[in-house]
Amino acid sequence: MSAAAVQTVVDLGGEEILGLLAQTERRMSELAAGHGELLARYAGQTIAAGGKRLRPLLVFLAAGAPPPSSPGLLRAAVAVELVHGATLIHDDVLDGSSLRRGRPTVFAAGGRSMAIATGDLLFSRAFAELAATGSVEAVRVLARASRELAAGEVMQRADAFATNLGVERYLERCRLKTAVLFRAACELGALQAGGPADALAGFGEQIGLAFQILDDVLDVTGPSERTGKPRGADLLDGTVTLPLIVASRRDPEIAALDLRDIQTPADAARLSDRIAATDALDDARNHALGLVRGAKDSLPRLPRRQRTALELVADGVVERYT
Amino acid sequence: MSAAAVQTVVDLGGEEILGLLAQTERRMSELAAGHGELLARYAGQTIAAGGKRLRPLLVFLAAGAPPPSSPGLLRAAVAVELVHGATLIHDDVLDGSSLRRGRPTVFAAGGRSMAIATGDLLFSRAFAELAATGSVEAVRVLARASRELAAGEVMQRADAFATNLGVERYLERCRLKTAVLFRAACELGALQAGGPADALAGFGEQIGLAFQILDDVLDVTGPSERTGKPRGADLLDGTVTLPLIVASRRDPEIAALDLRDIQTPADAARLSDRIAATDALDDARNHALGLVRGAKDSLPRLPRRQRTALELVADGVVERYT
Repeated sequence: MSAAAVQTVVDLGGEEILGLLAQTERRMSELAAGHGELLARYAGQTIAAGGKRLRPLLVFLAAGAPPPSSPGLLRAAVAVELVHGATLIHDDVLDGSSLRRGRPTVFAAGGRSMAIATGDLLFSRAFAELAATGSVEAVRVLARASRELAAGEVMQRADAFATNLGVERYLERCRLKTAVLFRAACELGALQAGGPADALAGFGEQIGLAFQILDDVLDVTGPSERTGKPRGADLLDGTVTLPLIVASRRDPEIAALDLRDIQTPADAARLSDRIAATDALDDARNHALGLVRGAKDSLPRLPRRQRTALELVADGVVERYT
Repeated sequence: MSAAAVQTVVDLGGEEILGLLAQTERRMSELAAGHGELLARYAGQTIAAGGKRLRPLLVFLAAGAPPPSSPGLLRAAVAVELVHGATLIHDDVLDGSSLRRGRPTVFAAGGRSMAIATGDLLFSRAFAELAATGSVEAVRVLARASRELAAGEVMQRADAFATNLGVERYLERCRLKTAVLFRAACELGALQAGGPADALAGFGEQIGLAFQILDDVLDVTGPSERTGKPRGADLLDGTVTLPLIVASRRDPEIAALDLRDIQTPADAARLSDRIAATDALDDARNHALGLVRGAKDSLPRLPRRQRTALELVADGVVERYT
């Protein structure tokens, strides 16, 4: 999201949103510090590396704009962000990634064992946070999402290097590895506001899908200074994404490629250029934009400020770096 | 536990215990099968590999002998066993272990990525099971335990190859990596019976400590056909345990060793023999026996059958392979 969009969201959500986001940061830091020196170093690193806090923002706005005063709301937001952090840390072990958001990953700084343990710890903390809200339904929502995230990890490994992947299968993987947590954020926010969990679930899922597709586009376009990871990282680790699937249909040479032959960052950058030379990136972006439109259309009757804020967040997920 | 002890526990716990243990197996299999073909293969493998189901047994007996009829009791037992399974799978990645209970680990059969994802999945399932009991307090208990388990993993890595480790630090690691889950099993059983969570917490923690100490003794004594892992596996991966700590105090040559020089199974077997030649194993066993005595002494007023069954389980954890 652009700075202007964030400002508008804050205007709509009021001081409450700013306060809640600040409290989220504070609570994340407290949690990182509470488990001994070694773990604090690595969990703290991950937490300090920050990120957009898009999922906590969704939790808050799904509850209202401004969000109602509810002691459980902050905990729900922190829980979602902790699960997000845990999956990033484990993903980096799976991918052997040494950079994330332009900083060393836990895997790179502390080694594989530390990264697995740190991820496990953040997972556990997430459920402890939710349990403290007193809502079993909230625990259920997050447990389902984190189960699906794990299934998404597995699917990504199973489909590695499969350049004949269909769009449906790709989208199902995006749903599992990314969209379910956006969905859970919306469900948790709605629950905390006292409403039914599923009112905004479809909205969350669609913008999550759009987010992942755009992420996959940015992997091809870079620049790495903005994305914080080398360009074509997906190609290097065999992750087949929408831009590659579409480009394969348009360029027979891309279709004939064996991704295992992409060995160096220079190989990946060359293939990225070749993908960009087809219209695959525009196609993928349009797919994401369509999902965002669908997400906005799916919104139920809501107070005007809340609707506008959620629509801005939806637009924001496909506006990164443009 | 010996077959005779198990039989006595079953006699005390009645048909209910047998029925609950059978249902635990069934539920574990259902959960393994419910997440797509790939994951089922690996999660199913882990679950089929079985083990003693000591933690579920504790959940049941902490609730009563026979356990009261409570729909949440089975779910609590399954949740504890799922967390146990998840930590074993992740531990095998950390240790690079290829055998567990005499069978290939998920890490060996499916690779590192599959093992991390399978562990994450079992964690999530555990919290989903507990959430389904409707008890937030239960979620809190398990989240705390799994947080401590992760801290234990970290501590084990941090202390690897540190042959100057003190007994206190070793015991704290055993508490974190093993005893907290025994404690949680007792807490969850007590909760399901409608009592306070902490009545049997100390009992669970002490027998968990005894269990880990005996496990560390068995690593030195073998035989590997019984333990399902090569003899001296801890020595090979630099895990400093009570037998080595005690032996170091008695044998200056052991004290002078650099564990990094233990490179082959033959090296590990030789050092195991040397540890056994001091009285370190008896010392460690006696430490475990003392903990079991303490655990039994800590039991509150309980119905006679329940007390006897719990005492038998306590004795059972230090009777393995003797």
